[in-house]
Amino acid sequence: MPDDLIPPGLHPLLAARWSPTTFDPEFEVGAAQAELLVEAARWAPSAGNSQPWAFIVARRGDETHRRLVRHLARSSGRWAPSASVLVANLAHRFVEGTDWEFSEFAQYDLGQAVAHMTFQAQALGLSVRQFRAFDQSGIANEFSVPSHWEVTSMSAIGRVPADAGSPPRPAPGPPRDRRPVVELLWAENRLTTDG
Amino acid sequence: MPDDLIPPGLHPLLAARWSPTTFDPEFEVGAAQAELLVEAARWAPSAGNSQPWAFIVARRGDETHRRLVRHLARSSGRWAPSASVLVANLAHRFVEGTDWEFSEFAQYDLGQAVAHMTFQAQALGLSVRQFRAFDQSGIANEFSVPSHWEVTSMSAIGRVPADAGSPPRPAPGPPRDRRPVVELLWAENRLTTDG
Repeated sequence: MPDDLIPPGLHPLLAARWSPTTFDPEFEVGAAQAELLVEAARWAPSAGNSQPWAFIVARRGDETHRRLVRHLARSSGRWAPSASVLVANLAHRFVEGTDWEFSEFAQYDLGQAVAHMTFQAQALGLSVRQFRAFDQSGIANEFSVPSHWEVTSMSAIGRVPADAGSPPRPAPGPPRDRRPVVELLWAENRLTTDG
Repeated sequence: MPDDLIPPGLHPLLAARWSPTTFDPEFEVGAAQAELLVEAARWAPSAGNSQPWAFIVARRGDETHRRLVRHLARSSGRWAPSASVLVANLAHRFVEGTDWEFSEFAQYDLGQAVAHMTFQAQALGLSVRQFRAFDQSGIANEFSVPSHWEVTSMSAIGRVPADAGSPPRPAPGPPRDRRPVVELLWAENRLTTDG
């Protein structure tokens, strides 16, 4: 298997996943679908079931969306507002009023929860691009996020327009390069030497 | 929708997912399936495609498995060795030889990659339990993991025996409680008020 090919056995939702920067600016995600996205994240596993996550969920056209868009960076401001949904992904970093970590897995578990949200979005025919090009403290202030929480990332979720090409390739955007498998496996532990 | 029920629209692989501590001690995962698990993680998204992850993958019966099992805590040592596969999940925390973060998303992205691996495992009829009950520096020493990498978590992956009950419930183990949706959404941003 060449290292730049997605293997045939990969689940279709994983194999077809990519991170577009072009979204259909007319397509709307309904409230029930947006709720399902949150449910997907909500049922993700976490260390000791600590659930160190929260979300600011905005649908294009609502007031929350307008307030989030104000804090996008110039780069993300060019494409993210056209997605149907914008989500700010928050991690519970500290125990309130202290500098003690709430969980050593706060970011790890938030990443998992966002991955679960992404699978659910894919299952609904939507695509997701996560990004960091926004004003973290701007959003925290705008939404009164207390300092023991962190606005870690954002997700743009929507439908890729038909004329944007069919994912995952040929696709607009950067190529889906990945390090070869052999680099991901610790040198002494290559599957092929055991298998 | 009562808050303790998994909503019907959730993707079946997410709805059926749980974290067992009982695995069929005879069932074996083949090398090709183990490779698919790594591929699932490999194709996960990451900040700037930084791919801050690596994995020590062991199948029950191989030498790597024996070496990993030595470093389990007493608690995980009671159940994790019976899983078909043990994986140590490594995060690329620092730029080699410095105390600069390799990526502010190293743990977040590792969490995502492990979620992708979990999703693929579910698609193969396997279940996954992640855990932290192991000797982090013991594994790092055993496998010569350099200090700019962190052995963040482990995953036990295998088949749940038929007599362990049918996931997700009634199921052995802790109940699948989650915080109510309204707590996950920042107070000003309840989906229902927008929708």
